[in-house]
Amino acid sequence: MNLLLFEKPFERICIEAKDTRTQHLLKVLRVEVGSLVFVGFINDARARAKVTELPDDGSVHLEVVATESAPPPLPINLLIGLPRPHTAKRLLFEAASMGVRRIDFFEAENGEPSYARSSLWQQDGWRERLCLGAEQSFGTHIPEVAMYPDLQTALNAQDAAALNLALDNYETAVPLNERLSTDVIKITLALGPERGWSSAERDILSRNGWQRAHLGAQVLRLETAAVAAVSATASAMRLWRVPTKTEL
Amino acid sequence: MNLLLFEKPFERICIEAKDTRTQHLLKVLRVEVGSLVFVGFINDARARAKVTELPDDGSVHLEVVATESAPPPLPINLLIGLPRPHTAKRLLFEAASMGVRRIDFFEAENGEPSYARSSLWQQDGWRERLCLGAEQSFGTHIPEVAMYPDLQTALNAQDAAALNLALDNYETAVPLNERLSTDVIKITLALGPERGWSSAERDILSRNGWQRAHLGAQVLRLETAAVAAVSATASAMRLWRVPTKTEL
Repeated sequence: MNLLLFEKPFERICIEAKDTRTQHLLKVLRVEVGSLVFVGFINDARARAKVTELPDDGSVHLEVVATESAPPPLPINLLIGLPRPHTAKRLLFEAASMGVRRIDFFEAENGEPSYARSSLWQQDGWRERLCLGAEQSFGTHIPEVAMYPDLQTALNAQDAAALNLALDNYETAVPLNERLSTDVIKITLALGPERGWSSAERDILSRNGWQRAHLGAQVLRLETAAVAAVSATASAMRLWRVPTKTEL
Repeated sequence: MNLLLFEKPFERICIEAKDTRTQHLLKVLRVEVGSLVFVGFINDARARAKVTELPDDGSVHLEVVATESAPPPLPINLLIGLPRPHTAKRLLFEAASMGVRRIDFFEAENGEPSYARSSLWQQDGWRERLCLGAEQSFGTHIPEVAMYPDLQTALNAQDAAALNLALDNYETAVPLNERLSTDVIKITLALGPERGWSSAERDILSRNGWQRAHLGAQVLRLETAAVAAVSATASAMRLWRVPTKTEL
C-alpha cells in the first residue's frame, strides 16, 4: 500500500500495536521517529504525517504535517453481474484503485445464488478490498457498492443522465471506442458475470435503451475486462488530466 | 480456459490421461463422446474438435471438425522493468490474454537481481502463464519474450519504426491519450518495475528519444497499469475491429 487510510480526519493519532496499519508502518515501511508517511482520510483529503513517538507498547504516534486534495473519483460507474467471490475480490480492488465512482452488482442468470451468500459480502471483506485498492492508488475515494437481486432492478436504480453501455464481446459488432467521445459527461459500464449475459438479460438491456459495445477479439477475464473498459473510457473521455505528483 | 492450446496442428490426436488438458476436458468440461470443444494451435489457427473416443485408459481422442483464423496479435509491444515473480506471473497472463505481440523485460535499477533467478524464468513457468492467458482469450498467439540485463540494452533491441512511449505517473504532465492517434501503426509501451523508474533510467529514455505519458491521478499496480495502457492504446488506435464471435 502506498498510503494508509483512516475512517476520519485527525491531527494527531495513536495507532495501537494490534492495528494492521501499525504492522505495515513498523515491518514494511520500517519507520523511525521523524519518518514521514502518506495517510488518507476516506472520501476526504490525503496528508503527510510524521512519526512523533514509538512507545514500548508497540503503538505508533502520528501527527499530520501537510494536507492536500486527494484525486477525485472518475465519473465512471460499473454495473456488474455478481461473480464468484474470488473474482469479486480482484474486481473490488481494481475498481477502487482506478478511481471508479460506484459499483453496483446484480445477481445474474449465469451466476450462482451462493455467490451473494459468501463471507466476502456477509462480513467486511468487500470493504477491505476497496480500501486496499484506494491505498494502492494513493487515493481516498471508496466507491459506493450496492447489490441488486436481478438486472432489471439494478437498471431501475441507474443514473438516467449517464451514457449507459453494456460490454458484450459476443453479440455486438461495435467496438467500445465508437461509443465514446469527449462529449460524454458521465457513464455507466455494465459487464455480465464470468459466464456472460443471458439472452433474457440482453433483451432487458435493449428494452431499457442500453447500447452495447465490445472490447476486441480477445475474451478477457471479467476483472481484466473491467480494467480495460474503464481505462479505454477514461482515456477517450480525456479524464486523465491530473498528474499523480503530490505536492506534499 | 476457453480453448485448449496445442503446440502443433493435428487432425486427430490422443491426449494421455496424465495431460492437464485431459483433466480439464473430463473434470471441468465433463465431455462425453460427441462433445465439441475449442482447440488452438500455437501461433496458428483455432478449431472445433469432436471427442471421438474415451477409452478406459483415461485418455481423450479428439478429431478436428472445423478450422478458422485465430485473432491476430495487436501491434503493441511491452517493455517492462522486471518485477518480482508474483507480479510477473500476472503480467504474463494478462498481456497474453490481451493479445500483446511481444514482451521484453529488462533488469531495472529499482528491481532485485533475485527476480531473474526465480524458478518462473529458470523453468517453463513463464511460458505456461502465456499459454493460460491465450487460452483465456480464445486466442493462439503466444507473445515472444526476451530478457535484457539493463534498460539501454533493451532499448537497443527495440523496433525503430514503432511509436515508443514510456508510462510514468510521476514525472510527466502529458496523459497517454494525448500521445495516441489513429495514425500510429505500431507502438511499444514501456513500464518501470513496481518501484518505478530510476532517475538514470529516465535520462536514458530521454536520450533515446522516448516520449513519456501518464495514466491519470491513480497509481496502479504494475499489472493493472499494463492492462490499462494496452487497452487505452488499442482503443485509441481503433484496433478493436474484429468481433469475438467465432464462426465455428
